[in-house]
Amino acid sequence: MEMKPAQLRQEIRTGNFSGPTAGYCDGYAQANLVILPKKYAYDFLLFAQRNPRSCPLLEVTDAGSGELTYLAENTDIYTDIPKYRVYENGVLTGEFTDVSHLKRSDLVGFLIGCSFSFESELIEAGVPVRHIEEGKNVPMYLTNVPCKEAGIFSGNLVVSMRPVPYDKISTSVSVTAGMSRVHGAPLFIGDPVKIGISDINKPDFGDRVTIEPGEVPVFWACGVTPQAVLMKSCPDFAITHAPGHMFVSDVKNVQLKFE
Amino acid sequence: MEMKPAQLRQEIRTGNFSGPTAGYCDGYAQANLVILPKKYAYDFLLFAQRNPRSCPLLEVTDAGSGELTYLAENTDIYTDIPKYRVYENGVLTGEFTDVSHLKRSDLVGFLIGCSFSFESELIEAGVPVRHIEEGKNVPMYLTNVPCKEAGIFSGNLVVSMRPVPYDKISTSVSVTAGMSRVHGAPLFIGDPVKIGISDINKPDFGDRVTIEPGEVPVFWACGVTPQAVLMKSCPDFAITHAPGHMFVSDVKNVQLKFE
Repeated sequence: MEMKPAQLRQEIRTGNFSGPTAGYCDGYAQANLVILPKKYAYDFLLFAQRNPRSCPLLEVTDAGSGELTYLAENTDIYTDIPKYRVYENGVLTGEFTDVSHLKRSDLVGFLIGCSFSFESELIEAGVPVRHIEEGKNVPMYLTNVPCKEAGIFSGNLVVSMRPVPYDKISTSVSVTAGMSRVHGAPLFIGDPVKIGISDINKPDFGDRVTIEPGEVPVFWACGVTPQAVLMKSCPDFAITHAPGHMFVSDVKNVQLKFE
Repeated sequence: MEMKPAQLRQEIRTGNFSGPTAGYCDGYAQANLVILPKKYAYDFLLFAQRNPRSCPLLEVTDAGSGELTYLAENTDIYTDIPKYRVYENGVLTGEFTDVSHLKRSDLVGFLIGCSFSFESELIEAGVPVRHIEEGKNVPMYLTNVPCKEAGIFSGNLVVSMRPVPYDKISTSVSVTAGMSRVHGAPLFIGDPVKIGISDINKPDFGDRVTIEPGEVPVFWACGVTPQAVLMKSCPDFAITHAPGHMFVSDVKNVQLKFE
């Protein structure tokens, strides 16, 4: 657990590590990956500009390149993530631990901020994070709230939910409001029905978690939104990270507050 | 001075107002405009993503449209700005108070945050803003600090400078750090020579202002950066606002802190 991100990426690159990245390299930001042909890249970049809470872009590669400059140096996003998924026309067609054989001159990589970054801050501020306590994946819900459209991309917002005690809600807002590059402050606090969630105990993605008496559901914009919106539009080719198998960057979570 | 933004835009649209917008519609955000053919739009959007401090995009239109949804409704960016400049191959070829005759289906409009928004917050927080006190334009300098390149766009950062008393510098940082959609916190504080400014009394753009004993030059990323970078690359066609003649939005400066 004491590996630096560059060491972990080295282990991943050489095939010695292919598991989920949660809990590794504590304090360093992890990122979601979407790789798309350039013909879709403008619309996706515009979607991110219009929906910064659900699609906080941390870095975009040059077309044809797997290199980064901000999140990490000496890295290749086609080899340095533990597990990838390949989609053709919106259909999952393969899972790989290395996608360098799929590199093409027209592919653009998008690295998107991840709520792992703010969860560690919440815990440090004394706000309980239930799904971590219960060893589960965060519960996520498709809402009835439309995203702002951009070109071919449209669809509804996906939110993640963390139950927060009534006397910690204010802290949960303050802590995450300062982290706009990883989803920022909650979008909704309270009644799930208002955003089209009919049963809080049946998340659309992830796991159900316990909501204790005196706790209120707090909803943040979720990075699954751009993936869901993307897949709905059935691009002819896309590569993403496999769920939970993230890009581990050299940037500390705390740095994301100031850049 | 008591006009609402929608009224001012109406006056502009009907040809009754064509002057600079500074001092109008106090408290409402004003924005810089760049209109470009779609063929340049991806690189420009990527430049903004990579250089958010100097190019904080508030809104991007759909190609061919002059409408906005976030900054204002019932508006047309081709008629609602008091004065425009048209550039062909990097050369200024005309100045107009209405550019609706130049609308084309491939043109994309970019609205970029403006330091007017944080200056009113600085003044409210008790930080003097010298160029306003002296009735001048803010001094701006071309630095030796390269921006992150994106496609055809590259060039050095342009900064604006405000001299701040030694006991107000901390406040000036705190106030502007909370406004990342309008350039955010200062990038540099102190010695101008370190960023390639040889004579602080000879700004590259705008006016010289007085620096009193005990005051330190504080440098913010400036919205002239994307314009300078853009013009350097000589796009075959571009429309911008004329300096000081901004788009006056319905969004309050204070809202920019939270969205």
